[in-house]
Amino acid sequence: MPADGRARVVIEGVEPEIDCGRYPIKRTVGERVFIAADVFTDGHDLISCALLHKQAGARRWSKTPMTLLENDRWGGSFTVEVLGRYRCCIMAWVDHFRSWRRDLKKRVAAGQDVAVDLQIGAGMAKLAAARADGAGGRRLAEIAGALEDARRTPAERIEMAMGEELSALMARWSERQHAAKHDRELEVEVDRERARFSAWYEMFPRSASEKPGRHGTFRDVAARLPYIAGMGFDVLYLPPIHPIGVTHRKGRNNAVRCERGEPGSPWAIGAKEGGHTAIHPELGSATDFRRLVKKAEEHGIEVALDIAFQCSPDHPAVREHPEWFRKRPDGTVQYAENPPKKYQDIYPFDFETEQWESLWQYLRDVVLHWIGEGVKIFRVDNPHTKPFAFWEWLIGEVKRDHPEAIFLAEAFTRPKVMKRLAKLGFSQSYTYFAWKNSKWELTEYFTELTATKVREYYRPNPWPNTPDILNEFLQFGGRPAFAARLALAATLSASYGIYGPPFELCEATPREPGSEEYLDSEKYQIRAWDLDHPDSLRDTIALVNRIRRSNPALQFDRSLRFHHVNNDELICYSKRTQDWSNVILVVVNLDPSHRQSGWVDLDMDELGLDPQQPYQVEDLLGVEKYLWHGAHNYVELDPEQSPAHIFLLRPQVRTASDFEHYM
Amino acid sequence: MPADGRARVVIEGVEPEIDCGRYPIKRTVGERVFIAADVFTDGHDLISCALLHKQAGARRWSKTPMTLLENDRWGGSFTVEVLGRYRCCIMAWVDHFRSWRRDLKKRVAAGQDVAVDLQIGAGMAKLAAARADGAGGRRLAEIAGALEDARRTPAERIEMAMGEELSALMARWSERQHAAKHDRELEVEVDRERARFSAWYEMFPRSASEKPGRHGTFRDVAARLPYIAGMGFDVLYLPPIHPIGVTHRKGRNNAVRCERGEPGSPWAIGAKEGGHTAIHPELGSATDFRRLVKKAEEHGIEVALDIAFQCSPDHPAVREHPEWFRKRPDGTVQYAENPPKKYQDIYPFDFETEQWESLWQYLRDVVLHWIGEGVKIFRVDNPHTKPFAFWEWLIGEVKRDHPEAIFLAEAFTRPKVMKRLAKLGFSQSYTYFAWKNSKWELTEYFTELTATKVREYYRPNPWPNTPDILNEFLQFGGRPAFAARLALAATLSASYGIYGPPFELCEATPREPGSEEYLDSEKYQIRAWDLDHPDSLRDTIALVNRIRRSNPALQFDRSLRFHHVNNDELICYSKRTQDWSNVILVVVNLDPSHRQSGWVDLDMDELGLDPQQPYQVEDLLGVEKYLWHGAHNYVELDPEQSPAHIFLLRPQVRTASDFEHYM
Repeated sequence: MPADGRARVVIEGVEPEIDCGRYPIKRTVGERVFIAADVFTDGHDLISCALLHKQAGARRWSKTPMTLLENDRWGGSFTVEVLGRYRCCIMAWVDHFRSWRRDLKKRVAAGQDVAVDLQIGAGMAKLAAARADGAGGRRLAEIAGALEDARRTPAERIEMAMGEELSALMARWSERQHAAKHDRELEVEVDRERARFSAWYEMFPRSASEKPGRHGTFRDVAARLPYIAGMGFDVLYLPPIHPIGVTHRKGRNNAVRCERGEPGSPWAIGAKEGGHTAIHPELGSATDFRRLVKKAEEHGIEVALDIAFQCSPDHPAVREHPEWFRKRPDGTVQYAENPPKKYQDIYPFDFETEQWESLWQYLRDVVLHWIGEGVKIFRVDNPHTKPFAFWEWLIGEVKRDHPEAIFLAEAFTRPKVMKRLAKLGFSQSYTYFAWKNSKWELTEYFTELTATKVREYYRPNPWPNTPDILNEFLQFGGRPAFAARLALAATLSASYGIYGPPFELCEATPREPGSEEYLDSEKYQIRAWDLDHPDSLRDTIALVNRIRRSNPALQFDRSLRFHHVNNDELICYSKRTQDWSNVILVVVNLDPSHRQSGWVDLDMDELGLDPQQPYQVEDLLGVEKYLWHGAHNYVELDPEQSPAHIFLLRPQVRTASDFEHYM
Repeated sequence: MPADGRARVVIEGVEPEIDCGRYPIKRTVGERVFIAADVFTDGHDLISCALLHKQAGARRWSKTPMTLLENDRWGGSFTVEVLGRYRCCIMAWVDHFRSWRRDLKKRVAAGQDVAVDLQIGAGMAKLAAARADGAGGRRLAEIAGALEDARRTPAERIEMAMGEELSALMARWSERQHAAKHDRELEVEVDRERARFSAWYEMFPRSASEKPGRHGTFRDVAARLPYIAGMGFDVLYLPPIHPIGVTHRKGRNNAVRCERGEPGSPWAIGAKEGGHTAIHPELGSATDFRRLVKKAEEHGIEVALDIAFQCSPDHPAVREHPEWFRKRPDGTVQYAENPPKKYQDIYPFDFETEQWESLWQYLRDVVLHWIGEGVKIFRVDNPHTKPFAFWEWLIGEVKRDHPEAIFLAEAFTRPKVMKRLAKLGFSQSYTYFAWKNSKWELTEYFTELTATKVREYYRPNPWPNTPDILNEFLQFGGRPAFAARLALAATLSASYGIYGPPFELCEATPREPGSEEYLDSEKYQIRAWDLDHPDSLRDTIALVNRIRRSNPALQFDRSLRFHHVNNDELICYSKRTQDWSNVILVVVNLDPSHRQSGWVDLDMDELGLDPQQPYQVEDLLGVEKYLWHGAHNYVELDPEQSPAHIFLLRPQVRTASDFEHYM
């Protein structure tokens, strides 16, 4: 037998709930959390339902009423105000007073004698009076007395019984006897806004020198900040800044042997100068780094570091902690492999080591070290090659004291693995965006990301390019292709990033035909860039980022909706704020070579537009303004002029009928 | 930190799983249970995955391997052999041997030196040898030695390393170190076949007399058995057989006052002769009842009783246990109500009583009493007006010792309530079938019941009519409407039922226009029926039930698929066995008034048919046989002749090319 056989209400089908509550949903400070559930009881009694929530550590729950949506589905919401974990839960109970009131109404309408029913109501009010305190209790007792008071007319007593005052008091002091509580508390991970809305710029500090041939430094990067801020980025992500190994160091274009003086790959971490907490001497000192972080802040930019948990053979840990690496039968250390390929410049940590606990702690301390140096954002390299449980623990450990920390998962792997990393705690995730170039691919993919349960835990951060990815569309499409991919990334997703300067300079030469690697990649050599090249996209990028900042619709992903266009080279979608105060409609030409035109067919409800009234569309990326009518409208884009329309929609401010003389 | 940071495999997305494993899925003895899950690990290692299962009480698990389906999804199955609860669970582990073997293959293909790799493999084989027993262990040790044996050629050693023998031994003695186990064990409720496949006949025993005017008895019912068995029914459901109350007894056609001698409603349970465990004296004795149960068994029929947990004011419990009923302030007992309607002949039990535990036990004992009398099937009246937790407990209690018990939920209420009752334990459930009469309604509803998660716990038992439901379609459509609804119920669903004799006699007069109640309903009076009326559907019913018995396809619901017909008055669907050894295609004319024709467009894959080959369709309900070709075929049904085709499909046995002289 259950503990309380009289707990008659059932709560099920709670949403959003990730893997039966195993993982939290994600929100940012100031957002509302809307929770829905199927809640019902046996028989004909009415129920009441409340949403409880609190910060994870707090003792007291806050309670807000839930309302019946339809078909036994109830909904309620609360706002998350503080960084960190929240918990929430649903409780519900049979509400005898509400049932009684509903029935009384029917009896009165049928002209029945309700004397006994008024007595029943008085009884409930008396019990509530005993539960209530102060004025409420006194008033309830008064009303209870009045309901039974034979000196009052039945009509008077009925009016009092049905009155709003009694209802409000009874709701406030509801019995909640035998209340049911959902058997799982759901968690909400609350991040700061930048976890949801961010524009990333990746660059190699060693290529930041003004003087070709000289190794760039943190000071050079600091000098580059106005340029980056001018384009409107707010996260500056640096590939690993640690000492680079010399054993088996790779040469330019990933050559197995390197020439004297070649700098090697920054991902071959560790040398005699130190490991994951040290700084590559040629970049500068720890002080220089802290200065850069501070300077960047002055420009509204946060420096993000790369977390790449692997070692060069020269990493101090290889010597100091041989137990964290796998030994081969011949006594050598196991290097990284993807058979038949061997990466002898890299030693992976052995996460199956007996000493996994000390290894985990060491790696956590690497992150904490950089947090101590002022870094709060981390781009994690290949998280899918380390155990899921490790990341869940590490992120939890770091965020416990530093809930402002943001982790971006750089995993390009199978979909379920990418989703699992997001569920277990990564704040943002790389995407398949680089390989989604046609209209149907983009539509299907971003619909999955923004309109299914995935949106509750997976924050996409699409990149048109990275040091590892120069896709065919960019290789063949030239400058218009770069512009179109920028417009897509920056408007489909509230967070996005580019790898510059190659991106804004439209660098498009692959190492060899069919490859997605850059020729003369900065991963293996220092490059000098002509930032003032006239074809640079920097002004377009700056404009797009300004549009993002001034339009809240573009700062969230869940309102994304695709609209039909009768041309497969044109894609059309909208985003809006919940209250329709800001509505953006984007049309992108996916063909970098030809002018394309077509007719859009807009979902007017979604856009909050009256199909009978004209409305203004103002292209924030161009100069055009149009007055549109209805759902069906003509669009045309010439890739040589503009990759996209980013329309701000406005219901027409005035129509003729607004003027008095027409009335 | 987790207990074992080296448990790297993740198991999620397990299906079928009802409400996060809160409820069991349902199967019948001999069925296979197929379980699928997303299982994967970090990095590039291969994994292995096993499905564990056992009877709930057993100590040891049986283990069967799961196989990779696609995209990180794994599947496995087992057969349930015994009545009662099974439990199952998934475990998975990183399989270093399989990973090593895959990599060795690539290295060998690339012409690399694999001496060290063979040593690694030998090391794994040695560890497995230590785990293994007997011959397996010795053979593993031998192979391990051979892999390292410098006297053998590399080619020999590689062949041995890649051989099936080593793979099989390593799989058998897999390390399973740091294996992950899914954090929930899933349950399977295993019922007997009749829970899944049954044909119900409901009748009022008191109307079973051959002699009009005489109160029918159990002996009369026994005499009716050949008639019922002749129609092919295997469950005979009797409305309550208990003493009927006299206080506020209802008259014919639900009149508030009854005339002297009127029998009252059998659902007003309890009188001075006794309550829920007593028998209405006019029906016979307990011995007569036991004889009826036994006699029915001889005809292959089980007697099902009605469980209606409510009392007439004259029920002994009202006097003996006043604490189980709610008191009104005026001292009277609270009668049933649906304001403004009052049912003063019925006292509901008060499930919110302080004494709920004794009430629950009492009600459970009612069921156990009838089980003691040989009844194993119960039709439960209005279960949705008693607490869900009560039913879950009661059914669990009864089935613990009597796993053969079957409970049918008679709830016609909101969808989530009906589903919850099915989840918590009811073996079968009434449906909305009576109100689904058009093609789109039937298609949508039965697709939900058979092709979504609902099928894992909800076994539909559709009834074209009941003593409470004479729908408009039957009222207006006459005999052809009854025939069509019978064909639908009996072929859409493996279980179904009718309320006879009104059904087979096509009784179609409502109490008043717009009502779904029968005129002169047997609920309130005794009726005499002319079973030999020439318009009786008994022969059609007998034929339909014979078809159901000889075609296994019709004994399960999950294979139901709808096929397109270009006429909304014709509905077409198929059912088949898993191996296509039995394939049934049904076409029903939903228009009882007109001949309808159209073209079906069959899903040939679903039917297991080669679109290039002709096939036979034989109408088991009529006499026609056709040779059809391809997906597109003409059908025509005249309601005056036949409501439906029930085609048995057979790939054509011989074609010209089978004969030698054509070859």
